[in-house]
Amino acid sequence: MQSQIVTFLIKCPDQKGLVAKFTTFFYEQGFNILSCQQYVNAMADRYYMRIRLDAAEAEISKKELEDKFEKVATTLKCTWSVHYGKEKQNVAIMVSHTSHCLYDLLERQREGTIDCNISLIISNHNKLKPIADMFGIPYYHLPVSKETKIQQEAQIVGLLEEYTVDLIVMARYMQILSEDFINKYPQRIINIHHSFLPAFQGANPYQRAYERGVKLIGATAHYATVDLDEGPIIEQDVERISHESTPKTLKGIGADIERLVLAKAVKCHLQHQIIVSDNRAIVFPESGE
Amino acid sequence: MQSQIVTFLIKCPDQKGLVAKFTTFFYEQGFNILSCQQYVNAMADRYYMRIRLDAAEAEISKKELEDKFEKVATTLKCTWSVHYGKEKQNVAIMVSHTSHCLYDLLERQREGTIDCNISLIISNHNKLKPIADMFGIPYYHLPVSKETKIQQEAQIVGLLEEYTVDLIVMARYMQILSEDFINKYPQRIINIHHSFLPAFQGANPYQRAYERGVKLIGATAHYATVDLDEGPIIEQDVERISHESTPKTLKGIGADIERLVLAKAVKCHLQHQIIVSDNRAIVFPESGE
Amino acid sequence: MQSQIVTFLIKCPDQKGLVAKFTTFFYEQGFNILSCQQYVNAMADRYYMRIRLDAAEAEISKKELEDKFEKVATTLKCTWSVHYGKEKQNVAIMVSHTSHCLYDLLERQREGTIDCNISLIISNHNKLKPIADMFGIPYYHLPVSKETKIQQEAQIVGLLEEYTVDLIVMARYMQILSEDFINKYPQRIINIHHSFLPAFQGANPYQRAYERGVKLIGATAHYATVDLDEGPIIEQDVERISHESTPKTLKGIGADIERLVLAKAVKCHLQHQIIVSDNRAIVFPESGE
Amino acid sequence: MQSQIVTFLIKCPDQKGLVAKFTTFFYEQGFNILSCQQYVNAMADRYYMRIRLDAAEAEISKKELEDKFEKVATTLKCTWSVHYGKEKQNVAIMVSHTSHCLYDLLERQREGTIDCNISLIISNHNKLKPIADMFGIPYYHLPVSKETKIQQEAQIVGLLEEYTVDLIVMARYMQILSEDFINKYPQRIINIHHSFLPAFQGANPYQRAYERGVKLIGATAHYATVDLDEGPIIEQDVERISHESTPKTLKGIGADIERLVLAKAVKCHLQHQIIVSDNRAIVFPESGE
Repeated sequence: MQSQIVTFLIKCPDQKGLVAKFTTFFYEQGFNILSCQQYVNAMADRYYMRIRLDAAEAEISKKELEDKFEKVATTLKCTWSVHYGKEKQNVAIMVSHTSHCLYDLLERQREGTIDCNISLIISNHNKLKPIADMFGIPYYHLPVSKETKIQQEAQIVGLLEEYTVDLIVMARYMQILSEDFINKYPQRIINIHHSFLPAFQGANPYQRAYERGVKLIGATAHYATVDLDEGPIIEQDVERISHESTPKTLKGIGADIERLVLAKAVKCHLQHQIIVSDNRAIVFPESGE
Repeated sequence: MQSQIVTFLIKCPDQKGLVAKFTTFFYEQGFNILSCQQYVNAMADRYYMRIRLDAAEAEISKKELEDKFEKVATTLKCTWSVHYGKEKQNVAIMVSHTSHCLYDLLERQREGTIDCNISLIISNHNKLKPIADMFGIPYYHLPVSKETKIQQEAQIVGLLEEYTVDLIVMARYMQILSEDFINKYPQRIINIHHSFLPAFQGANPYQRAYERGVKLIGATAHYATVDLDEGPIIEQDVERISHESTPKTLKGIGADIERLVLAKAVKCHLQHQIIVSDNRAIVFPESGE
Repeated sequence: MQSQIVTFLIKCPDQKGLVAKFTTFFYEQGFNILSCQQYVNAMADRYYMRIRLDAAEAEISKKELEDKFEKVATTLKCTWSVHYGKEKQNVAIMVSHTSHCLYDLLERQREGTIDCNISLIISNHNKLKPIADMFGIPYYHLPVSKETKIQQEAQIVGLLEEYTVDLIVMARYMQILSEDFINKYPQRIINIHHSFLPAFQGANPYQRAYERGVKLIGATAHYATVDLDEGPIIEQDVERISHESTPKTLKGIGADIERLVLAKAVKCHLQHQIIVSDNRAIVFPESGE
Repeated sequence: MQSQIVTFLIKCPDQKGLVAKFTTFFYEQGFNILSCQQYVNAMADRYYMRIRLDAAEAEISKKELEDKFEKVATTLKCTWSVHYGKEKQNVAIMVSHTSHCLYDLLERQREGTIDCNISLIISNHNKLKPIADMFGIPYYHLPVSKETKIQQEAQIVGLLEEYTVDLIVMARYMQILSEDFINKYPQRIINIHHSFLPAFQGANPYQRAYERGVKLIGATAHYATVDLDEGPIIEQDVERISHESTPKTLKGIGADIERLVLAKAVKCHLQHQIIVSDNRAIVFPESGE
């Protein structure tokens, strides 16, 4: 294996000796353990681990590593995945009219703070094409109506396959995706909702926040599931507002929260910091190695 | 009028010249205007003012002031109230089992950061009596069941009258008050709810926050209305949590938010910073005079 | 006067009747007062006002308005300025190597959340020219060394005059400007410093924050004065970090704070929300009209 | 060993296989590992671990455990400490005139959110004795002047020994302790400073924050060292203020930050979450087990 960082995400029933067994396994294969983060859900008797390995001195092939680990995993009843640092992920961004999240992601990718390929942008409108052009990213305008939804989604799926997309980011794509589409990409679609969920699920959250007279507004990034706005929450944040705020100024304040929250969620996903369990996203903090 | 600070809270339809008319009125009665805070709700065409006056050089009686202002108010279609700094308000605290908000309010009143009399504590349990004793506040233990609710509330009303209570603070009083009781004290009952409303209305918010996997939890202080947890929000705040948090640790983190949020709301009320309109609480910031 | 919003910023010694006098004055000239924000510094006996007027029904010329107000101002010993909504301000951005603040400002201007012309970008390096090109903004590469500093600044001054620049934004321009330069543009140069001032003034704040082991890092936007990093603070914010953070990850976290803080400060300046007094920036909140 | 939780805090040079070795060691002694938190400082090549063990099924005595671990530690060049859950720590609180932090700590201890004995309160004034009496804690009034400082500190040392105090909390004790005193209790004195250090070290931070015109104020809890306000920072927080804030209102806002920050720091210390290294406090988050 070439010099690179390898990340394992593991979940299994809690049992004595797990950390010793896992770390000893990787140590014996010649890996240096850069960080080893665990979470024990004592109520559910479940164990979760994210372990980052430096492969520089490991003389094992990917195949061999995975086969060997599978044996350990079977004994301990683990579900697991492994991610190799050298493999850059392909991202598709879906948008409608609103540009702030799109700009933000393109910029961060350009600056290197989000490490991925942004392979394409898909929109049901043509409005944001000039931004795609500025950044030199292919832009697909796929209009959609009730009648054409099935075909449009089929076109999207075609594009996602063509570009071998790993992650779909709904950066204020204001359409509801079909169950079929969502089920095709479990934990691979990140949506940004412009409220502090579960408050103000559904449409017009800023207007409703204004009417309810809340003192803080927020945004929530979550994996899309078939239950609208009810998928596992990856990141949220809020900002203080005042009675002076109108639905319009709330939109402006909220835009900044949305940008940051979505970017953080995308980054956590790309860095393999997330394990989903029982509709909860366990997000391990970025390790400082 | 003796030397003191006088606060007017005014609401009326928006119209040209309001601030000039109000400030000129008070200026002509000999008041020095310490601060004059306004809010124009342009969407609803409503105008709101909080004006604080130094009465040191005003040689007008309360009666005269109020009569004169009423004339202005009638012309401009104002609803208004006036509050004299020398009149300390009487507060009743209602509690059940949980002590953190009670301690906090007693302490702040003792230290002078909340300026009022805490006249009595009412509880459906006897558990927190020792705290009342420590601080020398009368404690009334009024148990309640479905059957005795009407009588118990009548006893409470009796006590509130006996102590001429101005403000009722539900510092984690885990009973639902009757509509009759609530309607008797409009904008005079402050409740603390242990979630970031409108998320997790109703029972067990920390358990539900855990299950939903939110990344921040909060607390909300609001005026009690007959619609449970739907009254005008005075203050809210949140704190970041992690997947490590259990419902039990959430309770601990939440307790600190509840204390601060409730104390701030009570302070804003006592300082006459709040005007309620359309179920929204307009909370003017504390002026620095 | 055409239909537009007019903003007055006023400071004067505190005295009885000010708000009545000012608001009556504008009311009598036919203006509708949209918002009227005041601050009384009781310790220094100083009064500050920001008043926003709708000129739709005011049949007075600019000249006449200013002459009339000057008479009032002289009587009350006011310093004041007036700003007409129709006059878009010209902004110059100065940068070195770092792009995040530049991207952010360009984007916000493009999206309309910052209302100004970005007239030109000036840099001592050529590195960020491609970004200027993407957004179609003139980019001037003016290298600088100790020896050429005077000439380089003269060139900058020439450009600022050519473009009739109103505001200079140092978006991580890592050069120290000369006293002459700074004195030429009082309260017209906004700098972003990558620490929570007054902590970590000067160079390498993230490295020093790491070494000191602080638990939060921040950023500060301030008007540049001849005392480095000591000008009036317009906006600051912080973000929580952990012991895992390295100087490098601090830089990443800090970049997001810098972007937001600088954008907010620029917006407050452009919206005439700021009055400077005794090296303190009084920043009136955005009014919701 | 009786059923209890055992916590090890370990630091050593970084080297391959550490986590495997430590966790295997504890696993083999019959402990269940509840949580295992690590931090690798890659720049300094240092490794830190906090490991929490359930001793329910471990049939080893304390002595035996410590002897065995010492052998491992010697090989790996570790510095370490072990803490047994059943041993409640004794805390002394030192105060002067200000009561908010004192109230807060007493209350939290009473409610069980801070798990310790508060053995005694020491003050150079008599003012806060009534609070000690309310909570039934011995109060020692030890006045101090320049001349009597050595004797007064000797008296304090006597009391700390008499009560076998583990932790000294300076809850706004406004005296500077001597080097001798401080050196006697390394990492066992926690001080609260009423600013966001390193900003506003030394006296009158709120006055200076006002004068500097900062937009946020803060508080910092740190271990006391001989360099005043320069010890390892355990916890900090900030709160937004406005230009309306006076030094007096800053004091009020700051008091709430101080209370929370000090309480969190004390809790982290009592729960053995802290390892100090190079004047930085590594504070492991509370584990959710």
